[in-house]
Amino acid sequence: MTISRTATTFPSPVMEARRWIAGKTFSPEKPLINVSQAAPVEQPPLALREAIADTALNLPSAHLYGPVLGLPDLRAEVASQFSASYGGQIEAENVCITSGCNQAFCAALVTLTTEGDEVILPTPWYFNHKMWLDMTGVRAVALPTGQGLLPDPDVAQALITPRTRAIVLVTPNNPGGAEYPPELIAAFRDVARTAGIALIVDETYRDFHSCDGAPHDLFSDPDWDDTVIQLYSFSKAYRLTGHRVGAMISSPARLAEVEKFLDTVTICPNQLAQHAALWGMRNLRQWLAGERAEILDRRAAIEEHFPKLEEKGWKLLGAGAYFAYVQHPFRRSSLQLAQDMVDEAAVLALPGTMFMPSDDPAGERQLRIAFANIDRTGITQLFERLAALAPRGVSS
Amino acid sequence: MTISRTATTFPSPVMEARRWIAGKTFSPEKPLINVSQAAPVEQPPLALREAIADTALNLPSAHLYGPVLGLPDLRAEVASQFSASYGGQIEAENVCITSGCNQAFCAALVTLTTEGDEVILPTPWYFNHKMWLDMTGVRAVALPTGQGLLPDPDVAQALITPRTRAIVLVTPNNPGGAEYPPELIAAFRDVARTAGIALIVDETYRDFHSCDGAPHDLFSDPDWDDTVIQLYSFSKAYRLTGHRVGAMISSPARLAEVEKFLDTVTICPNQLAQHAALWGMRNLRQWLAGERAEILDRRAAIEEHFPKLEEKGWKLLGAGAYFAYVQHPFRRSSLQLAQDMVDEAAVLALPGTMFMPSDDPAGERQLRIAFANIDRTGITQLFERLAALAPRGVSS
Repeated sequence: MTISRTATTFPSPVMEARRWIAGKTFSPEKPLINVSQAAPVEQPPLALREAIADTALNLPSAHLYGPVLGLPDLRAEVASQFSASYGGQIEAENVCITSGCNQAFCAALVTLTTEGDEVILPTPWYFNHKMWLDMTGVRAVALPTGQGLLPDPDVAQALITPRTRAIVLVTPNNPGGAEYPPELIAAFRDVARTAGIALIVDETYRDFHSCDGAPHDLFSDPDWDDTVIQLYSFSKAYRLTGHRVGAMISSPARLAEVEKFLDTVTICPNQLAQHAALWGMRNLRQWLAGERAEILDRRAAIEEHFPKLEEKGWKLLGAGAYFAYVQHPFRRSSLQLAQDMVDEAAVLALPGTMFMPSDDPAGERQLRIAFANIDRTGITQLFERLAALAPRGVSS
Repeated sequence: MTISRTATTFPSPVMEARRWIAGKTFSPEKPLINVSQAAPVEQPPLALREAIADTALNLPSAHLYGPVLGLPDLRAEVASQFSASYGGQIEAENVCITSGCNQAFCAALVTLTTEGDEVILPTPWYFNHKMWLDMTGVRAVALPTGQGLLPDPDVAQALITPRTRAIVLVTPNNPGGAEYPPELIAAFRDVARTAGIALIVDETYRDFHSCDGAPHDLFSDPDWDDTVIQLYSFSKAYRLTGHRVGAMISSPARLAEVEKFLDTVTICPNQLAQHAALWGMRNLRQWLAGERAEILDRRAAIEEHFPKLEEKGWKLLGAGAYFAYVQHPFRRSSLQLAQDMVDEAAVLALPGTMFMPSDDPAGERQLRIAFANIDRTGITQLFERLAALAPRGVSS
C-alpha cells in the first residue's frame, strides 16, 4: 500500500495547539494569553462591515460565481496601488486573487514543480509552506539563517541543484519577524534569475513593515516577472482573516497556469470577500496607517520588556510584523515547554520545532510569539508569566 | 526540465468557454443563452441576504479565523439533517465544511492517493475531477457508461488494479444528468468495499433529485464510513455559488488527514458563507422545495421539447439535476460546433470533449446543456435556435 499525500506531512500546528487547550478552563484573574496564531482578534471597522452588509443586500453578483482569477476591479486596484508603492509597473493581468495567501503559495508552487523537485526555504520556515511541499512530493531544502534570522544568498546558491525550482522568502518573516533588507532581496533575485528558477516573495505582513518606503525594488526592474512571484494577504490589513482573500503577482503566462489549479480547487474566490478587500483598499488607507502604528508600538513594547526575560536566560532572536521569535533557557524541549506553558502560565504559543526541519535541533530551544493578538498590557502580563516559569521545570 | 503539475492538465473549460464570447455583442432580440456553467443566475432570497448582512454587522467571529474543518454548528446541522434524510447515523465529527464541493473532492483524494495511483471515473466525467487527478499524478481510469449513462459495477470491478484507490460517482450526474438507482450505488459500494478502496459519492445536485425519498441507503449501513465518502455543495440549494461552501462526510480518521490539506490550502472556509449555509439549512426548507419543483419543471420542459430536435437528428442521452446531455447530428466536432453556436445561435454550451478522455471519440458528438440557468421560455428559445442550426454547417 502506498502512502497517501496527506500521510507524508504533519498535522496543522495551529489546530494541534488548539487541542492543548481543549476542555481546559482558565481563571478570570489569569485568562489564557493566546499568542499561537497570527490574527487580529478584533472584527473589521464598522464602516467596512457596513460595506459588506450593503454589498450582500444590494449587489446580486456578489453571491454568484465570478472569474477564477478574481474580481477585475480588485485585480486592477492591487495593480495600481502596488505599482505606486513599489515604484514599478504592475498591470491588472499580473494580479490574481486567491482564497487567502496560503492558496496563493500552493497555486504558485504547482505551476513550478512536480514530484521530486526541490524548493529552498530559509529556516525557521512557515509550516504551511513545508506542508504543501510535502503533500506535492517536493523536497523542502532548508536554508539555515544567521544573525538576525537573515538568509545568505551565497549559501542559497550553493544549495541549488538541477531539481531546484524556486527560493521562497517571507518578509517581514513568519515566524522570525525579520525584515529582509532590499539589497538582500535583490541579491536573492539575482541568484534565482541566474539559475533560471523563481523567487517567491511572500509579503503577507507588508502593511506592518517598519520602513516607510518600498520594502524592496524588485518591481522597478522591467523584467521582474521572468523571476519574481509576489504573494499578498488582505487578512491582516483589513481584519478579514475569516474571509479568505489573498493575491499573487506574477506573469500573465503563469497566471494562466494558476487558473487551472484555482478553478479545480475552489472555482473562484469568495465574491463578498473580494468586495470587502476592494472597499478596504479604497477607503481604509488612513485607518490602516493607525493599525500599523499600533503593531509597531507593540513590537517596541516587546523590545522594551525583553531585558527582563534576558535576565532569566531568554534571547530575542527576531521581532517584527506580528512576531517575536525567542530562545528559551529551559532543558525541556520546546514542544514540551509549549504544552506545559498552558498549565503553568496560561500562555499558548507554538514551539520552534513546528518551524524547523526535524533534523535541526535549534527548534527545541525556540518559540514563536504572535504578539499582534495582544496589546501593551497583554505584553506586560505575558512577559511576567514567562519570567515566572520555573527555570528548570521538568514536566511530569 | 520537468513538467510542472499544472502543465499536465488542460485549461478550465468554463473559463475557456467564457473566452469564446469575450468581446462579442449579442442583439437585444437574440441575447446570448448561456448554458455553459451550472449555476443559479439569481441571487439568494432576500431573507438570506438579510441574514448575511446581519451576521456581517453583528457577529465579530464571522470575520475571524475559524476551525479548519468548519463551524461546529454547521457540521452538527449537516449531520442531523443528513441522518434524518438518509436514514442513517452521521455524527458532527463525520462532517467537515470545505470551500466548495470541488475542494471537498480534492481533499478526499489527497487522503487516498499518491503519484502513480489510479481512480475510476464513469465517463462522461466532471472535468474538474479529471484536472485534479492530472495535477496530483493520479491516473483517471475511464469507466464508459451504457444505456441511460449508467455505469456498470462489474465493469468497474474489472478495472481495479493494485494501484486503484477509489471509484467516484456523481449522482445526479454532472454532466450526464443521470440519477443512479439506489441498488446501483449499493453495488458500487460492495465492489469498493471488497477491493478495500473508497467509494466517493458526489451529491452536489442531491437537492434537485426527482425521487422524493433518500436517493440511496448507504448511510443505513452502520459501517458506512469504512468505504463511503460523500461530497455535498451548498451552492446550488441556497444560491450561494459565489460564497464557496461545500461539505464532506467521512470517517473522523480521514477528516484528521483532510484537516492537513485544508489548513494548508485555505486555513478555514469563509466564515460568513458558513453562517449563510447554516441559516439556509435552518430556514429555507420550504423555499428549497419550491426551487426543486422549478428545476424539475425545467427538466420536464426539456423532455417535452426534445422531440422537435430529434426530428433533426439530435438525441437526448440524459436529463436530470441541472443538465441535459445531448448528441448532435453534425459532422463538425463538438468543440467546433460549440464555438460556432456562439455566432450562429447565440448559445454558449460546453462540448462533450471537455467531459471525455481524449481517446474516446464519443465526446465529438456530444454537448452539455446546463438548463438550470434558463426558464421554460428560455428552454423554448434554446430549442428553436438549436433546431435552426444548419444541419451540415461546416465552419470556416
